[in-house]
Amino acid sequence: MSNSYQSKLRSYLITKSLVPENQETPIHFIHGDIVSNRLFYRRSHFPYPRFASSFYSLPIEGLVHHPNVFSLQQIYSLPSKTIKVVLECSGNKRELFNPKVYGEQWGKGAISQGIWKGVPLRSLLAYTGLLETAKEIVFEGHDYGERTDSNQSHSFSRSLPIEKALDPDTIIAYEYNNQPIPFKHGFPLRLIVPGWYAMASVKWVKRIIVIDKEFKGPFQTVDYVYYPNKKNDSGKFPVTTINVNSTIKYPLNRKILHSGTYEIDGIAWTGNGHITKVEISFDGGQTWDPCQRTSSSVKNAWVCWKYKWEANKKGEYTILSKATDSKGNVQPLKPMWNRKGYGYNAIDRIKVNIE
Amino acid sequence: MSNSYQSKLRSYLITKSLVPENQETPIHFIHGDIVSNRLFYRRSHFPYPRFASSFYSLPIEGLVHHPNVFSLQQIYSLPSKTIKVVLECSGNKRELFNPKVYGEQWGKGAISQGIWKGVPLRSLLAYTGLLETAKEIVFEGHDYGERTDSNQSHSFSRSLPIEKALDPDTIIAYEYNNQPIPFKHGFPLRLIVPGWYAMASVKWVKRIIVIDKEFKGPFQTVDYVYYPNKKNDSGKFPVTTINVNSTIKYPLNRKILHSGTYEIDGIAWTGNGHITKVEISFDGGQTWDPCQRTSSSVKNAWVCWKYKWEANKKGEYTILSKATDSKGNVQPLKPMWNRKGYGYNAIDRIKVNIE
Repeated sequence: MSNSYQSKLRSYLITKSLVPENQETPIHFIHGDIVSNRLFYRRSHFPYPRFASSFYSLPIEGLVHHPNVFSLQQIYSLPSKTIKVVLECSGNKRELFNPKVYGEQWGKGAISQGIWKGVPLRSLLAYTGLLETAKEIVFEGHDYGERTDSNQSHSFSRSLPIEKALDPDTIIAYEYNNQPIPFKHGFPLRLIVPGWYAMASVKWVKRIIVIDKEFKGPFQTVDYVYYPNKKNDSGKFPVTTINVNSTIKYPLNRKILHSGTYEIDGIAWTGNGHITKVEISFDGGQTWDPCQRTSSSVKNAWVCWKYKWEANKKGEYTILSKATDSKGNVQPLKPMWNRKGYGYNAIDRIKVNIE
Repeated sequence: MSNSYQSKLRSYLITKSLVPENQETPIHFIHGDIVSNRLFYRRSHFPYPRFASSFYSLPIEGLVHHPNVFSLQQIYSLPSKTIKVVLECSGNKRELFNPKVYGEQWGKGAISQGIWKGVPLRSLLAYTGLLETAKEIVFEGHDYGERTDSNQSHSFSRSLPIEKALDPDTIIAYEYNNQPIPFKHGFPLRLIVPGWYAMASVKWVKRIIVIDKEFKGPFQTVDYVYYPNKKNDSGKFPVTTINVNSTIKYPLNRKILHSGTYEIDGIAWTGNGHITKVEISFDGGQTWDPCQRTSSSVKNAWVCWKYKWEANKKGEYTILSKATDSKGNVQPLKPMWNRKGYGYNAIDRIKVNIE
């Protein structure tokens, strides 16, 4: 952009609701593999919590040998781990479900990626120990409020099974992109659960409790559950691992373009291992061409990809992208419809018109 | 919002493209009848123009008795007119057309309203006079660039028929909401054509030329034309007057709500006279209830309206809003489909789920 005025151009978060604050990333305007705080989507269940961060500490209690309250200084002084992680809201792309579902109508931008630094949860649990009866670990956030389905106040709480809690990549993070975590994203401590949809990565962690049964909080047993049937709850199962997925970032859907050469680009990600292949189709999925990866394919992070497209013939084009991961998962042509609209991962699709 | 953190909540413009800059107003978060510069939608055809505003002047030439170049000082010193005006992009609500059309996928927020101050164009034309052969007046903007359908450079130029140009409400504006017009909205001079879709309100006016024929620029004869047929141009006619229309601002489409009492609210507007009635329906349009107007109904401005809704029964609701204007125009149940997606004004429709 040679014009100096153009330097004032800026894309902004797309507001879905203000209280609680839910704002989407304009994903088409993200470049590379790190999303700055300014364009990091915001997904809140309640108004932002208030607490005195100067007295902040993190208790670990319940079925442990040595209950402990960790100070922030203690946490900062333990050996740290730094990882690049995709955080994807399980409602990402909800607006694409057909039939449509209720809930925040997220487009393709309830996803983000950045560098998280923190202490592995297993290091903290090494101090407290776990009783043999320990089955799940509950993370309670400082945020709370009423739900539409009850008049009681609930805090945002979620659990992890012991194995996932002890995964060396599951961390209690205190930095995002080399800065303290932004308040709206969980300052001072956020649980980061790589590979799972982001509801698992509890913000503003207040307390950790080890229990000997399945946790039954509403954000575990009512929300963040796949309900494959519209009318009843049969066949339900919990939302956990991120499905293999891809998004075409450029061009935008329904754009009108000049004929010429274009670089189609996008991202692909999965909660299962890493991305092994991204393909593109111009004939509705009958034939597929490989895309070029422009970032390395590592666990927990998205892959950037591109494809050089000679668009010399006028007319309408449908462009599809399809990712495959190292566990053999492939994006399906149709998503698994579910009543609350989680986990959309159908082959991505845009249409453009060459004039 | 009692919580001090909540004061940091902000809605932003929704970016459709950056070059040219096209950003939509999050219309659901607009309160009252004045939209601030920060939330004023941006609709650009080309990169922002560059010019030296210190040497700015406005020539009126062509079929006039006394061609003249008006300085900004001259324009500021003439008797002014101040009007509250709706500016609506003719592509507003384009994404709602079915079958879908190509072009920027505007939602419901390519509309804005504010107070414009300027000199009536007729006052300037009184100085220059008009030859008897004068038929149209062309307004050339400082913005220019290539179009997707040609490799030539075009400036953004539009014409008005003499009668509309001489309307006392058609002004050469220099203030928006009591401030100099923001650069992105046409500083220092913008033609404001109340009652017409906003493509007529040429920004950064560079030159005014009086001609004796129909102007044939591409933004007059290719774009901003209704093409009722997908495959050919038969039946085409130009986009001019704003259709009678309404938008439900609250609640948001596809929201899940608690049972309780809600104030549904929205806006209604028309380019034909003023709004006389806004009605709401909960049964798919079989019966209609009048809404309460919460702002006065004046020409060129939108009306704010509300409706108290007792949502005590759980279930899915479809809510429709329908406006009528003083010329007897009523929003239709279906929009007039057209290939480029202009003038969408079907009865507004949202769905909510009461839990």
